[in-house]
Amino acid sequence: MNHLFLNALNGESVERPPVWIMRQAGRYLPDFMKLKAKYDFFTRCQTPELATEITVMPIDQIGTDAAILFSDILVVPQAMGLQFEMKPGHGPYLADPVRSVAHVSAVPVPDVESELSYVMDAIRMTKQVLNDRVPLIGFAGSPWTIFCYSVQGQGSRNFDIAKSFAYTEPEAAHVLLQKITDTTIAYLKAKVRSGVDAVQLFDSWGGVLSPADWELYSGRYMRQIVTALKDDAPVIVFAKGCGHSLADMSKWGAKALGLDWTITPEEARSRAGNAITLQGNFDPVRLMSSPDVIQRMVQEMIDAFGKDQYVVNLGHGILPNIPVPHVQAFVEAVKSYTPPA
Amino acid sequence: MNHLFLNALNGESVERPPVWIMRQAGRYLPDFMKLKAKYDFFTRCQTPELATEITVMPIDQIGTDAAILFSDILVVPQAMGLQFEMKPGHGPYLADPVRSVAHVSAVPVPDVESELSYVMDAIRMTKQVLNDRVPLIGFAGSPWTIFCYSVQGQGSRNFDIAKSFAYTEPEAAHVLLQKITDTTIAYLKAKVRSGVDAVQLFDSWGGVLSPADWELYSGRYMRQIVTALKDDAPVIVFAKGCGHSLADMSKWGAKALGLDWTITPEEARSRAGNAITLQGNFDPVRLMSSPDVIQRMVQEMIDAFGKDQYVVNLGHGILPNIPVPHVQAFVEAVKSYTPPA
Repeated sequence: MNHLFLNALNGESVERPPVWIMRQAGRYLPDFMKLKAKYDFFTRCQTPELATEITVMPIDQIGTDAAILFSDILVVPQAMGLQFEMKPGHGPYLADPVRSVAHVSAVPVPDVESELSYVMDAIRMTKQVLNDRVPLIGFAGSPWTIFCYSVQGQGSRNFDIAKSFAYTEPEAAHVLLQKITDTTIAYLKAKVRSGVDAVQLFDSWGGVLSPADWELYSGRYMRQIVTALKDDAPVIVFAKGCGHSLADMSKWGAKALGLDWTITPEEARSRAGNAITLQGNFDPVRLMSSPDVIQRMVQEMIDAFGKDQYVVNLGHGILPNIPVPHVQAFVEAVKSYTPPA
Repeated sequence: MNHLFLNALNGESVERPPVWIMRQAGRYLPDFMKLKAKYDFFTRCQTPELATEITVMPIDQIGTDAAILFSDILVVPQAMGLQFEMKPGHGPYLADPVRSVAHVSAVPVPDVESELSYVMDAIRMTKQVLNDRVPLIGFAGSPWTIFCYSVQGQGSRNFDIAKSFAYTEPEAAHVLLQKITDTTIAYLKAKVRSGVDAVQLFDSWGGVLSPADWELYSGRYMRQIVTALKDDAPVIVFAKGCGHSLADMSKWGAKALGLDWTITPEEARSRAGNAITLQGNFDPVRLMSSPDVIQRMVQEMIDAFGKDQYVVNLGHGILPNIPVPHVQAFVEAVKSYTPPA
């Protein structure tokens, strides 16, 4: 197996940093678009053969150093009885969002291994097809991020309804966050048992909170998950827009912290300390630059982070309109990286 | 005149910090909604009597320590021939966005004093009605923020089209940014001549850029504006999501830096240094909390910043659904502030 990714997570010295890309099995890939035209979103997630085919696609076509299981963070609230739909051109939508104490009480903590058996099947099938070429990452949304969608009922720029609920009904909010946390711990443990080699937590919407509210409503729940998982598999915590709390996150026992592109490598390392691997940081829209500019920027980025304790990635998911040759230039620049003389 | 605001900008010691609220003349006020029902957005901006009435409303009804002229950052690109409309339920919309080198070349640097004479009329009329009760703030968008709307053609979560244009046609992007900068300098100088007592620059979308790209595409143009204006009136720079560059901004000659709510007071002061006033930082959605929670949080916030060199404000514009008594509790908490014993 290509051990670069797991070695980098473990802080071991590597010849070059590994590279993978958030949403690497996504809409920028023509073969993905063909499957997307035939099968709707949740069919793709829930059919292990399709999830496997999509997961392996970027390994074959782009050559990243890790695979990430094709799935969605919303399978967790779905298992908790919240019936999200994917509205074309709109994104996730929940007709009956959770906005009362009574509704919070009624939300169950499900048996995820049976409710989400299709995820576990997809992991086992993907591991077979990957045949130990590269490690497989499993993921979950942070409890706060799942809370945001479950209360807001859809995507939002500022998740004002979700935040309002947290601020006006804090007790109920914490009950819901704890239920999501318990479900997520069971879910990620089941994923590790099914074969994933590492897990990543996505706090996509922690950035809408102040540092104090982030600790209260997001950080403390992610910390519970890291504590519960860290002896099962390496954990990566990616809290977009939460550079303010890297020092805090670095103490939880995670192997790596993901970075968006709004912090310099120097600042990120200074906050996170020297005992943890960092991942990410490339502005996703910068993949629209010409391949030679991408190559130069990747070289500079790795120079700034250093080749060890670093995993190359974007600072957020890849955009659908990025030309494939630009993605290839990004990955190639990592593979041909040479440290400064 | 109530000098608290100007004294705080000048770094003088004050009995308590001044308070004003971004979008304080906005949709949370029932009397504003009555005018909104009768007159469309640009009619309200372009009719000095209406702009004056709206500007003075929160002074009479909420009691803030400064007024800010009711207007919009998009009047500047409108004066440059970019015909923005305000689509109900959608926000600003430009049918023919700037997306080519030729289009950039064709954009004029207008005579703002004649093109935007209605703004200058509104300032003179507002100053008369205010009758020196409180100072009047004028504002403009940052060149990068105006660029974002002019190229994207509408609001966006990540302004990917605007960023892509900046990264693939950097020379044309810089030409457009310089034209916006030149127009904005003339515009703000005219506003000061017409009577505003301070000006604020809103870099609402600088936060979509990496720190390096922010310096390249946003910071350097705002710095030009501050340099050109700082001897005319006190300048406040508010770059939302750009806490990474507070140290840089603090060196431009502005009197104050605005803060969103994603940075702690301690961190903001440490970055900005001790020679500049800070403004803002209260999460706008936190105004949904109960009045007693608001009161406690305001007290703690002022304790953290200190009563001098600080202007109380939200970290972004007030939301339309905030109950008026909560806004009053926010302002009252500032007015009744007592320093820790």
